Amino acid sequence: MTHAQPDRPWLDVSVFRVPMTAPDDVSGLRQLLDSDTLKADEIVGIIAQPEGSGYARGYASLCMQLELAPRLGISPEAVFDRIPMMMIGLCGGLMSPHYTLFARRSVDAPDTPPAESRLTVGIADTRVLRPEEYGTLTQVELVAEAVKGAIAQAGITDLADVHCVEVKCPAMTPARLADAAQQGAPVVSTNLGQASSMAKGACALGIGLALEEIPPEKLNADVINRNRALYTSRGSVSAGGEQSACRVMVMGNSDRAVSRYRVGHGVMQDQLDTAGVYTALASAGLYAQSPLTAAQQSQIVQMFVNCGADAVGSVRDRRHTIHSDFLAGYAGIMAKAVANAVVASVVGDSMILASAGNEHQGAPGSNLVAAIIECMD
Amino acid sequence: MTHAQPDRPWLDVSVFRVPMTAPDDVSGLRQLLDSDTLKADEIVGIIAQPEGSGYARGYASLCMQLELAPRLGISPEAVFDRIPMMMIGLCGGLMSPHYTLFARRSVDAPDTPPAESRLTVGIADTRVLRPEEYGTLTQVELVAEAVKGAIAQAGITDLADVHCVEVKCPAMTPARLADAAQQGAPVVSTNLGQASSMAKGACALGIGLALEEIPPEKLNADVINRNRALYTSRGSVSAGGEQSACRVMVMGNSDRAVSRYRVGHGVMQDQLDTAGVYTALASAGLYAQSPLTAAQQSQIVQMFVNCGADAVGSVRDRRHTIHSDFLAGYAGIMAKAVANAVVASVVGDSMILASAGNEHQGAPGSNLVAAIIECMD
Amino acid sequence: MTHAQPDRPWLDVSVFRVPMTAPDDVSGLRQLLDSDTLKADEIVGIIAQPEGSGYARGYASLCMQLELAPRLGISPEAVFDRIPMMMIGLCGGLMSPHYTLFARRSVDAPDTPPAESRLTVGIADTRVLRPEEYGTLTQVELVAEAVKGAIAQAGITDLADVHCVEVKCPAMTPARLADAAQQGAPVVSTNLGQASSMAKGACALGIGLALEEIPPEKLNADVINRNRALYTSRGSVSAGGEQSACRVMVMGNSDRAVSRYRVGHGVMQDQLDTAGVYTALASAGLYAQSPLTAAQQSQIVQMFVNCGADAVGSVRDRRHTIHSDFLAGYAGIMAKAVANAVVASVVGDSMILASAGNEHQGAPGSNLVAAIIECMD
Amino acid sequence: MTHAQPDRPWLDVSVFRVPMTAPDDVSGLRQLLDSDTLKADEIVGIIAQPEGSGYARGYASLCMQLELAPRLGISPEAVFDRIPMMMIGLCGGLMSPHYTLFARRSVDAPDTPPAESRLTVGIADTRVLRPEEYGTLTQVELVAEAVKGAIAQAGITDLADVHCVEVKCPAMTPARLADAAQQGAPVVSTNLGQASSMAKGACALGIGLALEEIPPEKLNADVINRNRALYTSRGSVSAGGEQSACRVMVMGNSDRAVSRYRVGHGVMQDQLDTAGVYTALASAGLYAQSPLTAAQQSQIVQMFVNCGADAVGSVRDRRHTIHSDFLAGYAGIMAKAVANAVVASVVGDSMILASAGNEHQGAPGSNLVAAIIECMD
Repeated sequence: MTHAQPDRPWLDVSVFRVPMTAPDDVSGLRQLLDSDTLKADEIVGIIAQPEGSGYARGYASLCMQLELAPRLGISPEAVFDRIPMMMIGLCGGLMSPHYTLFARRSVDAPDTPPAESRLTVGIADTRVLRPEEYGTLTQVELVAEAVKGAIAQAGITDLADVHCVEVKCPAMTPARLADAAQQGAPVVSTNLGQASSMAKGACALGIGLALEEIPPEKLNADVINRNRALYTSRGSVSAGGEQSACRVMVMGNSDRAVSRYRVGHGVMQDQLDTAGVYTALASAGLYAQSPLTAAQQSQIVQMFVNCGADAVGSVRDRRHTIHSDFLAGYAGIMAKAVANAVVASVVGDSMILASAGNEHQGAPGSNLVAAIIECMD
Repeated sequence: MTHAQPDRPWLDVSVFRVPMTAPDDVSGLRQLLDSDTLKADEIVGIIAQPEGSGYARGYASLCMQLELAPRLGISPEAVFDRIPMMMIGLCGGLMSPHYTLFARRSVDAPDTPPAESRLTVGIADTRVLRPEEYGTLTQVELVAEAVKGAIAQAGITDLADVHCVEVKCPAMTPARLADAAQQGAPVVSTNLGQASSMAKGACALGIGLALEEIPPEKLNADVINRNRALYTSRGSVSAGGEQSACRVMVMGNSDRAVSRYRVGHGVMQDQLDTAGVYTALASAGLYAQSPLTAAQQSQIVQMFVNCGADAVGSVRDRRHTIHSDFLAGYAGIMAKAVANAVVASVVGDSMILASAGNEHQGAPGSNLVAAIIECMD
Repeated sequence: MTHAQPDRPWLDVSVFRVPMTAPDDVSGLRQLLDSDTLKADEIVGIIAQPEGSGYARGYASLCMQLELAPRLGISPEAVFDRIPMMMIGLCGGLMSPHYTLFARRSVDAPDTPPAESRLTVGIADTRVLRPEEYGTLTQVELVAEAVKGAIAQAGITDLADVHCVEVKCPAMTPARLADAAQQGAPVVSTNLGQASSMAKGACALGIGLALEEIPPEKLNADVINRNRALYTSRGSVSAGGEQSACRVMVMGNSDRAVSRYRVGHGVMQDQLDTAGVYTALASAGLYAQSPLTAAQQSQIVQMFVNCGADAVGSVRDRRHTIHSDFLAGYAGIMAKAVANAVVASVVGDSMILASAGNEHQGAPGSNLVAAIIECMD
Repeated sequence: MTHAQPDRPWLDVSVFRVPMTAPDDVSGLRQLLDSDTLKADEIVGIIAQPEGSGYARGYASLCMQLELAPRLGISPEAVFDRIPMMMIGLCGGLMSPHYTLFARRSVDAPDTPPAESRLTVGIADTRVLRPEEYGTLTQVELVAEAVKGAIAQAGITDLADVHCVEVKCPAMTPARLADAAQQGAPVVSTNLGQASSMAKGACALGIGLALEEIPPEKLNADVINRNRALYTSRGSVSAGGEQSACRVMVMGNSDRAVSRYRVGHGVMQDQLDTAGVYTALASAGLYAQSPLTAAQQSQIVQMFVNCGADAVGSVRDRRHTIHSDFLAGYAGIMAKAVANAVVASVVGDSMILASAGNEHQGAPGSNLVAAIIECMD
């Protein structure tokens, strides 16, 4: 626990969860901007879950950039550099395409500060990584540093107040492999999927390092994607070929935040462990018995679930066929569909974020859950 | 409410739920038979959920027939005719391949009958149907008659005591289409999928007719797969090319049953409606608050869930992409994966039966749930 | 045979086939424009085959619009209206993502006209169709009229000189269904897929009507997608939700064209009928024995193949499983992969266009093939 | 070149190619046996291509075993041990489910021996392999020895007369991994897919070693699945969990064979190289110009194609998306569909065998083709 510095600015943070009818549907964003409900220059991050195959992520991102560029007076490319756009694609089951917008602005000190800490967000980027750095300790350390930067930017002074860290990192691509080969620089793997997985693992370890969940002395190059006992319980990582640096967004609570929200987190030990959802809600301030009432459900602004069903072959000793049946090529989608459905059945809403990533993100087979709750006072 | 006839025999019914490591794994069945825990000639029905694509159903069935034939002293083909083997294939998500065995034997009147009705099962077949009868009122009526026969065989005298009716009917095949064409007999559809779907719809209406959920005067050829307001809430139907007649298995409770189990049913109004699971449990005699305790979960012998996620495009106004995304060809699997996950999260076990079929089986988008519970007294 | 009118302008047509590394890769287009090899204002049509699921079509289109808009001094939306962009998505097998650019400009009468007719292209749109007009005779007639307009624009005076007509028509969408319902206007089908298929069928019949392949007296509302004996042998149709009118591009040869190319067409009677490819090449002026020499292959500028493998269940009495196996949801992709591979094995190049559409586009099970050949003189 | 030993017996070999309507369809086999066209005790091997997902292989095998057991007077399990049943599953595109039966019997020396060598087949098994031997040099050597045994059994004295070697080896399974772990025996990989792939690679190297395509001095444990310059051009390997030993079938020509057939082989350098098919035909004695006449096509009894499309990312510098698009989980099926289509377009028949396996079976991206031709004299 650290003492709050008096010079930290007061922040107001807004969260908007917006359905999309297709990857190019930015009508909800447009309406928020046109109505001045949301100001373009206050947007600090977007986490989106578009439908479609991988390329739909870039499509959704481009459409948002095109919508925001004229309002910010910058080019669409500059929008991409300014606002981390975390596109978590590949929907399955009940997953409902949508995006979550985060806005932040400095405000004057309130006459009556909230009685408890409130939601704040911070963002940061690492420097551009060279392909040969993907999946290495260098990436671990750069990400840890960026996470710390984002935490500071969010005005968070106690690591216990950090509840969700989302990282988007560069994926290995054929072009990047070729670049490294031309430089004579050895990469962690010449297999695109493995190299990208290693990169994600390094990011997750970086989060765990920054949050002091993983002791620095346990970290070395050999543990990446090997030592499954090391993990963060508050981070989610995905990779994309469109990224060249690691983009970080931190959600936590701060005593200098005046937002109407609080964030919390919990862990579902396995796919059936709905108690983990209640833990996340309680951690955000919504103390509730099962089942939630409609009023309690309406307090839930958004849930972020990082799914681990595809990291193990069974649940409570019941074998599943995610990795062995003829749909094994879609294991990640299946894992997300399952986790989305279970959490949705608790919160009463399927338009929540589900991501898959089992590289040092929770113990194998567990789900990491973050909840943003609207405060009632 | 009908008065119980004094001449009904006393029945004892057993239920075994057995995991399978592959469609041809009958080791669990063999062990039950070898150890005399289960007697081959008391088996009255098998409901199985093998993994693999469609043909795995026939494979699993054949392996069971081969295991049972020498023990029954009949041919494998005769086993198929004697014991309805309901193979519900295509696993997704956490679904865990398994089969449920039902055994029944006549017993002497007990000195102390159970205080309340107990699980009983009955089976019946329609006559062989001609392809041109698939999806017609004739099929509706034949199935209704068979369901009534199975109810009587189960010793059930009150329709309210019927909680789950499983029907396997013939699917339309190219050979059957050709037969009908050669006879000049018009079929309901020359599209294999549509004809089979019509056949399933007719069966479901037949269940609803037998259970008096659908008034006979509302039935005519035009309502099949068209009038979605007509449905059974206690039936599940699937089709298979290996069947030539409709096979019916009825589960209910009877005051002449001495089994250790009770069955009940409930309806999940939509995919997130876990209250429907509790209704099914309570209907079977397990009155519980959410969440279930481990002791309560251990009382649950098996759950049968008929899923409707793929019958509608949204859940509580949240759009899903089951029918529009690139996995749309696997809509039924996705629907089952989702329903399995939600119900499994309540009962703490993913090795439960999930079937998909939205032809007159519940209101569109709902799930029908049946529960078999072990009685504690 | 019609006499060429003296007032038709002389046209020069260019064709560029450009590989794409991803749906958003417009680097090839940019290079052609930057080097003045291609002038933006001479582009009359683009036929593209991007990879990815359905949404990649819109993504590719948007990226091209963004590239062309500043060069044309119009908005990206206006580019879409000006240039028909026929996005034929969903790659499989060896299919190689690419696009084909068509440019056209008026030129002075040459001193020495080519000895034979040369490639020309024409484009036209129908008016915007109302959803209730999709799949109707109205659509047939509007498309026929647009095809005639495009033929005239191309400077073609003899229908025998038309070798390939590509049409992109509106697909039925939920929003359009809702609009029609609100207006009380009955649509041909409330099933999105069926309505879109009917729309494609109507377009194909419209092409056949314009090309006088189908006698007008055989046309009525009942034949659409029912009478498979009526078809065009020179047309290919696809549908997209982004279209509101039908966009038409005609390729043919004209005695007023000075391009270096000729186009021809042929029919593969079934998937193994490589003779049909040779017919198409000969029709374009490349008379060759099997197998083609490398020199002959290098003359081939582009092939357009409309595939029919998924319209029938067998090839030369050998059953295939495209519609019955566990990949049945991808029947169109499989059909294209197969046709692409066979034609590619003849022409020595897999970067050719494959489209699937069996609504009145060739006899069921046949492939329609168009070839653009570079003239050697 | 070895001198033919005078004591080798004269052999007659028959080949039957039989369509199947489903994995359990053995009606063609039954008809051949019932009509005495084929004698059960002369069957030496079966190569089948059933549709359906992986389990359909075991299903097809079991159905054949059940059909043959009573005719051979042995148990179904003993049929499996006696007759190598090579089940090559997973159909795509035009692939047409079927099986090829090989029968062999000793005959008296003919009065007039055929003018040239004729088709013969030989079979052999390795001993049962322990899981820790999968993918090792031990497996390479055991397979090489078995191939030599099968060659000798076939009465082949010159390695140049061997044209096709089919091997089915054990796949790694969870149970086998567990066994090895219990024994403390290290396996080549604890990843099931990688271990099975290594096992296939070892088998292919074993074939190459036996056929003297690979010099023994180049072989060591490190080259397996790493040194792609080492490969057989006449072998095809698949793995299955049902196998515990490696099963080998060799096809070649022998001067002591009186069958009506000859076998040959060729290599398609890439997926478009139809010349390789003509090489295989010529190697079998069918010297033909492209395209084949119908009479020539009718001489072709069966083609075996081992496909390599999925081993590389492009064909003649044209990128494909087999490994990167949303169907990447089905890369092997796509590779087979493509190769089947191209070869089928040459031979006029899609009911030919397509297998995928790029571990030391041909240079990466090439197809290995074997042809059985009926001799006309």
